[in-house]
Amino acid sequence: MDVITIERKVLAKNDAIAEENRKLLKGKKIYTVNIVSSPGSGKTSLVEKTIEKIGSKRKISVIEGDVQTDLDAKRVANYNVPVVQIITNGGCHLEAGLVRDALSGLKIEGTELLIIENVGNLVCPAGYDLGEDLKVVVISVTEGDDKPLKYPKMFMNSEVLVINKTDLLPYVNCKMGELKSNALKINPKLEIFETSCTSGSGINEWCNWLESKIQLEK
Amino acid sequence: MDVITIERKVLAKNDAIAEENRKLLKGKKIYTVNIVSSPGSGKTSLVEKTIEKIGSKRKISVIEGDVQTDLDAKRVANYNVPVVQIITNGGCHLEAGLVRDALSGLKIEGTELLIIENVGNLVCPAGYDLGEDLKVVVISVTEGDDKPLKYPKMFMNSEVLVINKTDLLPYVNCKMGELKSNALKINPKLEIFETSCTSGSGINEWCNWLESKIQLEK
Repeated sequence: MDVITIERKVLAKNDAIAEENRKLLKGKKIYTVNIVSSPGSGKTSLVEKTIEKIGSKRKISVIEGDVQTDLDAKRVANYNVPVVQIITNGGCHLEAGLVRDALSGLKIEGTELLIIENVGNLVCPAGYDLGEDLKVVVISVTEGDDKPLKYPKMFMNSEVLVINKTDLLPYVNCKMGELKSNALKINPKLEIFETSCTSGSGINEWCNWLESKIQLEK
Repeated sequence: MDVITIERKVLAKNDAIAEENRKLLKGKKIYTVNIVSSPGSGKTSLVEKTIEKIGSKRKISVIEGDVQTDLDAKRVANYNVPVVQIITNGGCHLEAGLVRDALSGLKIEGTELLIIENVGNLVCPAGYDLGEDLKVVVISVTEGDDKPLKYPKMFMNSEVLVINKTDLLPYVNCKMGELKSNALKINPKLEIFETSCTSGSGINEWCNWLESKIQLEK
């Protein structure tokens, strides 16, 4: 009971800060995406492909969340976009307060798209609003088609599902139809994209859609 | 600060119950393995292959941990071993108290090997002792070779690393040498197995080693 009470307090405090972040970002007309997934689903590769595709047209900034290391921030920094690494030191999700701190370290003026890459965890980040416009859950086909049923909250709380590593479909026991159907059972409103950051398949569709959302923010 | 205090209390309580579980299991000469990984790394497939290989020689019981659904328990029940499903209802890891409850629902008399499959999460289960003899972290090669550096606590707290889905190595950007070297940097004592539940490669080595540990328990 104690734990539940504390958890509620933590979430209420988080939500209040998330609303402040949202207000700040909206005021600056920055469209913000919170990318969540299991470890190794390809979040960072999707961020890289997104920057490659639309980074010359749209000013992008990135906040990287990791338990340890700044490996992902280093990868993204290669693309010459402003990036801040949050290291949670064992923490299993990003919180709005950490994003607020990261924002103060970013020169976000002029940014049109802010990408927040969350800690690799298909459970805990689901409950933490960061102030984003869009929560995008990424799943790799190698994880199997049952994951939306087994980890429903993340799929319920996301607006977009990116099914990644589709180039590996011939080699794994994952039926695309079943995966989509399971995801839509949990959240019928999910916008679904199928991508491969290796072959490039589906990246155009994802980026075009994302650009249309950025345009609407203006 | 509040949260940290509560967390310590929770962990202290967990550790006390874990010790009770350990005493109970040791008393019955049951060797207990706690399997942890990201979602979709192949924990359940590894459990299935282990039962296929040594289930006729050794009496095995299984506790399945999941956020939602009893899909994994159903898969394992097909092998005619006693199995209990713990559904955490959103909880991101198993705790010793849940395992204690599950044990009371299992007819464990005569069991030689108890396999506990944890919730798919490479972060949170790392800190929770369940009373096991052995923590086994499973990673799929599709997750990339940097994961031990990015999620170090799980690799630090495990005795065994199973690198799974090795049949997919030709198709993914993961160097086996780099993955092992990163894991051993975090924990030089890790016993490492390379397996593919699809091709069967490495399952013998893992099962033979596991059987030798069960034998020592007697």
